[in-house]
Amino acid sequence: RSGEMAKSTQLTDNEVFRAYATYTAIVLLKMMLMSLVTAYYRLTRKAFVNPEDTASFGKGDSAKKYLRTDPDVERVRRVHLNDLENIVPFVGIGLLYALSGPELSTALLHFRIFTGARILHTFAYLIPLPQPGRGLSWAVGYAVTFSMAYKVLKTVLLL
Amino acid sequence: RSGEMAKSTQLTDNEVFRAYATYTAIVLLKMMLMSLVTAYYRLTRKAFVNPEDTASFGKGDSAKKYLRTDPDVERVRRVHLNDLENIVPFVGIGLLYALSGPELSTALLHFRIFTGARILHTFAYLIPLPQPGRGLSWAVGYAVTFSMAYKVLKTVLLL
Amino acid sequence: RSGEMAKSTQLTDNEVFRAYATYTAIVLLKMMLMSLVTAYYRLTRKAFVNPEDTASFGKGDSAKKYLRTDPDVERVRRVHLNDLENIVPFVGIGLLYALSGPELSTALLHFRIFTGARILHTFAYLIPLPQPGRGLSWAVGYAVTFSMAYKVLKTVLLL
Repeated sequence: RSGEMAKSTQLTDNEVFRAYATYTAIVLLKMMLMSLVTAYYRLTRKAFVNPEDTASFGKGDSAKKYLRTDPDVERVRRVHLNDLENIVPFVGIGLLYALSGPELSTALLHFRIFTGARILHTFAYLIPLPQPGRGLSWAVGYAVTFSMAYKVLKTVLLL
Repeated sequence: RSGEMAKSTQLTDNEVFRAYATYTAIVLLKMMLMSLVTAYYRLTRKAFVNPEDTASFGKGDSAKKYLRTDPDVERVRRVHLNDLENIVPFVGIGLLYALSGPELSTALLHFRIFTGARILHTFAYLIPLPQPGRGLSWAVGYAVTFSMAYKVLKTVLLL
Repeated sequence: RSGEMAKSTQLTDNEVFRAYATYTAIVLLKMMLMSLVTAYYRLTRKAFVNPEDTASFGKGDSAKKYLRTDPDVERVRRVHLNDLENIVPFVGIGLLYALSGPELSTALLHFRIFTGARILHTFAYLIPLPQPGRGLSWAVGYAVTFSMAYKVLKTVLLL
C-alpha cells in the first residue's frame, strides 16, 4: 500500500530523520541513565525519601535515620531535572526541524553539538567542574535548540 | 493530493502508529491526572506553597499556617516527577520505534506492558505498597523503553 | 523519490501540521525562557544551590551565604515545572491530534487557546495575580489538551 510505503520510507530512507532518531534515542537514554545514578547514590549514601524504601534497614528509629537528603543525591536529581528542561525542547523542536527539510550536514551539526553539549553538561555537573564549564555546556545546547526553532518557524509559520 | 493521502494514511491506516497513539494518549492522560490528585491533596490537607493560594482562608497569620509541606502532597508530586522522567522517554522513543517498522504484535506487547507498569507504579507509590512493588513496576517500564530504543538504534543508526 | 515527497509534503503542505509546528515551537520556547528567568533571579538575588556557582563571590563563609533559597527563584522554578507537566502532554497529544485529521479551524482554535492560556499562566504565576487567575489559566490549557486526547482516542483507538 502506498501509505505503508510512505511510512516505511520516512524513517528508513530519510537520512535527516534517521539522524534525528539516532541522536534523540541517545540523549533520552542519557537522561534515563540519571535514574540509575540517583538510585546508586541513594543506596550507597543510604539517603531515602520514602519510608517504605527503608523498611529493609529495620523498623522505627533505626530506619528513620535513612530518611534524609544527601548532597550527592540532590546533585544528580538536579542534573535529571535540567535534562528534562532541556532535552524535552530538543526532542520536540528537533522533530519539527527534521521534518522541515534541512540539509543533512546542517542537521547533523545541530544534533551532534547538542548531544555532545548535554554529555559534557552531565560530567560538568556531577564531577563538578568549576564554572563556567557547566554554564557553557548548558548554553551551547540551549543555542542549538533555539537555532532549530528559528528554522522551524521560518519554514512553517502558520499562526 | 498525494501528500495529504500519505498523511491521513499514516495515522488512520498504520496499525502500529494507531497503537502508539492510543497508549501514548493513555499514559499522558494518566500523568496529567497527577495534577488533579495534587490539587485534591493540597485542598483537603490545606497545604499550599504560594501565598496567593491561601488568601481565601483569611489574612496574615491565619492564612500563613497553610503555607506548609504535607507528606501526601509531596508523595503525589514525586509520582508526577517520576512520570515525567519515565513517560517522556517512552513518548519520544516510542514514536521513533513505531516508525521503525516493528511487528504489530511486538509493538502492542511493548506499549501494553509499559502502560500497565506505569499504572501499577502509580498505585504502588500512592497506596504505598511495600517495596519492591514500586521498584519492580518502575524497572519494567524502564526495560520496555530501553528495548524500544535498542530496536530504533539497530534500525536507523546514523551518527 | 516518492518518500522524500511524502516527507516534504507532510510539513510544508499540510496546514494543520504547520499550525501544530508553529504553536509547539512557541510554547517550547516559552518554557525554555524560564531557564533564563531562573538564572536572572539567581544572579540578582544571589541565591544559588551549587557551591561551584558561588566561587566567584569569594571563598569559604563569604561564598557560603549565597547557598540559599529565595522566594522569587523558587517561584520561577515552580512555573518551569508546571510548564513541563502541562506542555509535555500538549506536545505529545497535539502531534497525534494534528495527524488525526482535524479541521484546520478547529485545530487552530485548540492550539491558540492552549498557547494563550500558558502565556497567561506564566504572568499570573510570576506577578502574581490573585487566584483564581492562575488556576483558571491552568485549567483552560488542561481542558484543551484533554479535548485533543479525546479526538485522538476516538479516531485511532487500538488497544
